[in-house]
Amino acid sequence: MADPWQECMDYAVTLARQAGEVVREAIKNEMNVMIKSSPADLVTATDQKIEKMLLSSIKEKYPSHSFIGEESVAAGEKSILTDSPTWIIDPIDGTTNFVHRFPFVAVSIGFTVNKKQAAKRTLVKGDEVEDITKSLLVTEFGSSRAPETVKIVLSNLEKLLCIPIHGIRGVGTAAVNMCLVAAGVADAYYEMGIHCWDMAGAGIIVTEAGGVLMDVTGGPFDLMSRRIIAANSKTLAERIAKEIQVIPLQRDDEE
Amino acid sequence: MADPWQECMDYAVTLARQAGEVVREAIKNEMNVMIKSSPADLVTATDQKIEKMLLSSIKEKYPSHSFIGEESVAAGEKSILTDSPTWIIDPIDGTTNFVHRFPFVAVSIGFTVNKKQAAKRTLVKGDEVEDITKSLLVTEFGSSRAPETVKIVLSNLEKLLCIPIHGIRGVGTAAVNMCLVAAGVADAYYEMGIHCWDMAGAGIIVTEAGGVLMDVTGGPFDLMSRRIIAANSKTLAERIAKEIQVIPLQRDDEE
Repeated sequence: MADPWQECMDYAVTLARQAGEVVREAIKNEMNVMIKSSPADLVTATDQKIEKMLLSSIKEKYPSHSFIGEESVAAGEKSILTDSPTWIIDPIDGTTNFVHRFPFVAVSIGFTVNKKQAAKRTLVKGDEVEDITKSLLVTEFGSSRAPETVKIVLSNLEKLLCIPIHGIRGVGTAAVNMCLVAAGVADAYYEMGIHCWDMAGAGIIVTEAGGVLMDVTGGPFDLMSRRIIAANSKTLAERIAKEIQVIPLQRDDEE
Repeated sequence: MADPWQECMDYAVTLARQAGEVVREAIKNEMNVMIKSSPADLVTATDQKIEKMLLSSIKEKYPSHSFIGEESVAAGEKSILTDSPTWIIDPIDGTTNFVHRFPFVAVSIGFTVNKKQAAKRTLVKGDEVEDITKSLLVTEFGSSRAPETVKIVLSNLEKLLCIPIHGIRGVGTAAVNMCLVAAGVADAYYEMGIHCWDMAGAGIIVTEAGGVLMDVTGGPFDLMSRRIIAANSKTLAERIAKEIQVIPLQRDDEE
């Protein structure tokens, strides 16, 4: 049976490529950087421009669909996930990288129907890694500079490093980090404090590649929870969940 | 006046490209991973093969030159820097990345005459960043899993993050991290616990790009000290030196 959402998925790819061209062009120019929730949470006119461009293209083609976008939420829109077909967008995942021209940014376009992420294609990832002592993890320090949050972030890193594991990397974007897991070159990614628009696009790429999404408590993954473990195997995800201390966070859909 | 060492520099580029081809080929195949100084300090047959290949090519062409190579030192050779022309080599900088096929590795070839790094070309880096609160840093957690070392590494990260700064990234190889500074997309790199072969090749690329090398104490950079700050500006390097606590380490040239 043909996938009823295939047309939307193809359109998402077209839009992501168009947005990517705008990013490529903008990265060559001077930027006007503004601060959002913390001195490390940045936004530029390009983030806003791309989100507007994506929103208007989607609204034109699919007027009945819903939309959750990072910059729209920053501007006061609600981010409540409903059953209707919903586009969940981060126009530039890795804005701090973008500002510094650190060469990893992603245009992240996720799509849910009945609150579930819609899958597009099946990739092939490498062998399952179950032994955490042989693993390479990816994560980020995050954009919060609240001392108590930074302390938990670092204490989690300490626990994981000293298991010991092979190493921890981080290229500065949730979407690219998750794609590195999907590609099998990193074994797991975890992070707390990110948002649905950071996870909606790449999370499904991990599961389609045969990987696992899990909540940091070890329970089922929740797109609006602001936290995720994306791993090569269930065993590895569970082991990471066992090690890390949870950071208290307001959910994306909390009023 | 013609550079008397230009021929050596050109030869280094040829050798690096040849070695790069071997890395590209080997990364497709199964690997036999061995452990060196810690469970996170890895080596493969490819590291050893490339080092042998480079050593024999250099010995054949420049029999009077000296050689310091990561795997030769691991096998018991001394690493004492003398005034004679010296090739300082890391066959695969980023072996843990290589093992995981995490897509950043470098063949690092440095060259010193009278204990000074020989320069080849001048690059152009971006504007100087002097305000640390606007900076993006690169560093690594390192391969030591000794709890007291990990504690200092993390406490340094905490101090820097909470200044606050824009962020910290790490792609898993000293050479590539330094080239990101030379390219102006990261503002500074610092690390302790690395070796002369991790710094000899890329350090000079930073200075040729207009950047600064400094010891983590704020004093002059010392190739055999196992520590470095490589920064976009002197002001930024000095500020990082002020923040970080030094990890006690045995020098590369200590018997």
